[in-house]
Amino acid sequence: MQVDLIIQAGWIIPVEPASVIYENHSLVIDKGRIIDLLDSKQALQQYQPHSLQVLDKHALIPGLVNCHSHAAMTLLSGLADDLPLMDWLQNHIWPAEQKWVSEAFVRDGTDLAIAEMLRGGTTCFNDMYFFPEVTAQQAVLHGIRANIGLIVFDFPTIWAEHADAYIAKGLALHDELRHQPLLSTSFAPHAPYTVSDEPLRKLLTFADELNLTIHMHVHETRQEVENQIKQTGVTPLQRLNELGLLSPGFMGVHMTQLDSEEIAAYAASGAHIVHCPESNLKLASGFCPVAACLEAGINVALGTDGSASNNDLDMLAEMRTAALLAKGVSGNAGAVPAAQALQMATLNGARALGLDDEIGSLSIGKAADVVAIDLSEIETQPLFNPLSQIVYAVSRQQVQHVWVAGRHLLDKRRLTGIDLAELQAKVQSWQSRIGTP
Amino acid sequence: MQVDLIIQAGWIIPVEPASVIYENHSLVIDKGRIIDLLDSKQALQQYQPHSLQVLDKHALIPGLVNCHSHAAMTLLSGLADDLPLMDWLQNHIWPAEQKWVSEAFVRDGTDLAIAEMLRGGTTCFNDMYFFPEVTAQQAVLHGIRANIGLIVFDFPTIWAEHADAYIAKGLALHDELRHQPLLSTSFAPHAPYTVSDEPLRKLLTFADELNLTIHMHVHETRQEVENQIKQTGVTPLQRLNELGLLSPGFMGVHMTQLDSEEIAAYAASGAHIVHCPESNLKLASGFCPVAACLEAGINVALGTDGSASNNDLDMLAEMRTAALLAKGVSGNAGAVPAAQALQMATLNGARALGLDDEIGSLSIGKAADVVAIDLSEIETQPLFNPLSQIVYAVSRQQVQHVWVAGRHLLDKRRLTGIDLAELQAKVQSWQSRIGTP
Repeated sequence: MQVDLIIQAGWIIPVEPASVIYENHSLVIDKGRIIDLLDSKQALQQYQPHSLQVLDKHALIPGLVNCHSHAAMTLLSGLADDLPLMDWLQNHIWPAEQKWVSEAFVRDGTDLAIAEMLRGGTTCFNDMYFFPEVTAQQAVLHGIRANIGLIVFDFPTIWAEHADAYIAKGLALHDELRHQPLLSTSFAPHAPYTVSDEPLRKLLTFADELNLTIHMHVHETRQEVENQIKQTGVTPLQRLNELGLLSPGFMGVHMTQLDSEEIAAYAASGAHIVHCPESNLKLASGFCPVAACLEAGINVALGTDGSASNNDLDMLAEMRTAALLAKGVSGNAGAVPAAQALQMATLNGARALGLDDEIGSLSIGKAADVVAIDLSEIETQPLFNPLSQIVYAVSRQQVQHVWVAGRHLLDKRRLTGIDLAELQAKVQSWQSRIGTP
Repeated sequence: MQVDLIIQAGWIIPVEPASVIYENHSLVIDKGRIIDLLDSKQALQQYQPHSLQVLDKHALIPGLVNCHSHAAMTLLSGLADDLPLMDWLQNHIWPAEQKWVSEAFVRDGTDLAIAEMLRGGTTCFNDMYFFPEVTAQQAVLHGIRANIGLIVFDFPTIWAEHADAYIAKGLALHDELRHQPLLSTSFAPHAPYTVSDEPLRKLLTFADELNLTIHMHVHETRQEVENQIKQTGVTPLQRLNELGLLSPGFMGVHMTQLDSEEIAAYAASGAHIVHCPESNLKLASGFCPVAACLEAGINVALGTDGSASNNDLDMLAEMRTAALLAKGVSGNAGAVPAAQALQMATLNGARALGLDDEIGSLSIGKAADVVAIDLSEIETQPLFNPLSQIVYAVSRQQVQHVWVAGRHLLDKRRLTGIDLAELQAKVQSWQSRIGTP
């Protein structure tokens, strides 16, 4: 049988079934999908590939799913560091955004983020930012998969005047994007403290009708929870629950403030958590009790958050930090073992986005979103266990190849669709303007 | 004036004075020492270099000081993961060591560690392992700086029979190495729970006579502290204090179990802390209260610990983890800002080793232990602040050049003195043997 591509690899870590590692196996890809996964010798007997990649020193993993990003904020990376969330937001990031964010900013910032993410093995990102139509357009242009957040605030920003206008623009964008094969959309009400009940009720109605997920910062800091209690007598989670938002279609991002009752209630709702360990550490927001949440049966995915509070979009590093931090926070060195960390960075992200029929594991029938990591570097030798080295020792520069829906977007570390010199020049120009007081 | 080398750099971050960043400056190096640091144009007017390195897209930082390593354990990296300290040690690492550790193991493992460390910008490591004479010999062979731990246990191991034998072998090794320009030595009693009072008293006497520092795991886990209290009625720190060990010549490694009184007492003693954040997280040992220790005036350095509990020897990543974790643990996003993190990874390590007259900053008169990091990669753009990007975004693969005492050991990522193919073959051979049950 003729097929588009066979990737013959030293190791294949499919994520489903969990903890399995195939040695000397091949992934058979046709029309953008994985159609087989079998022993490499058999693969070449059964299939005639149009293209053959021999990657004997590499491990294949599913494309990483960055389940919470503000992609365009890469242009603000390192602008303000070592500050707490509210000071950082109110006195640095929001003023910079007010001054600089435009369609052009989002276009160039998203391009920079896509370049960085692809070079680090991320094949899908779940974004929340202004001008989501521009983010969508750049994702389509570069062939990366994305879930586009239809952002909602109560107050005016450069993108819309008031909550109803955000929702209307969001619905129009959803409609415009609905036939894009690599895109999906979520409503993305920013946070409990920036979106009031009325727009939340409205967008929930639309989300139910259109079968859209909801993506929201929740319980990011203790201050957020305390302020809400002061204002309304209930926690943000209680309020969202009363409004009916907590369901399998809901992604709560950060979730650093959770007691055991809240964990149990959240688990019962079927909602997902997007854990952003590096951003939570950097802003001293608190610790998401990841081990307890997983134990309770909550689906926990991973995100980098915006680059301005990280300061990168490196999902391999985020996965390592998540695996290490969960052990420290729970006091259990067995918490979030390597296989679970990789699952959080791939399949759990796909589940949170409702895309687990399509991506998140190297399974027959799913889209060919595939990452090849070179494990032959001295930094990952000896190699007793490729899964362990990928989670605890690999750097993103060891990502050699990336395919999204079978398209070869990174080839021996070269981006096939992005001119890096041209992108660098654009970024330099933003840097000079933004960096000049 | 004729000089050996001028390194002309986009940015120079000398660490001393703190937080300073020089743009378009040059480091002038002669006979292995920094003899000037000045504007690049002036440098070429004042000096005629035998060799000129033009690194306009690079930042120079002092060589990183890995202040706690078990270098040869790289050969066990990834052998056993996701286990608590005592299970990991007693059921996995100690049995593997008993079976495999030999002079040849330490030679090849140390070579692997040195290759990895140099490629990641580490120019000095503070080691504690069996066959320290072999570690010393390989450090000399490869031209890296090292502080060699004269290891002491109560019980027999492959290196010595009993505490007196360890001390005697250690003293002989100290004597043998005392004219090596890049080496120094410390007594390295393993831990309070493996070395009894008598040998500690003895080695303290020798350390005082010979002006040697002492390097020891202390308060690594709560279990260690509780067991000691059960056995002796005092904490390990109280016991070490009563024995007279806590002084400016003492490095306590890990120190995850500390209350505010202990921090104050430790600060008063002038002893140093070596913080190993990734190992502490991975083994769920607890959190060193770094921000409070720094606040109290304690000199806090950084180490990777052995690769088997990390799983790498990446001091840039360790520095990032330290900066992020200190914020999370203290609840203060201003804790351990970027400049302080870099100081911990360089100058504070030099101070802990008593080598701060020689290394730890790019200061005139100090040895030329220098690292050049390429900041032009898309992953570290835009570049509002090179210090921030180095601490929060750089990967070790961006380390392009390393000099130790003026010798060019890494040149455009190529190790000038280590044959990587030959080393890989040796590591493969160990992997096949160790990995076969």
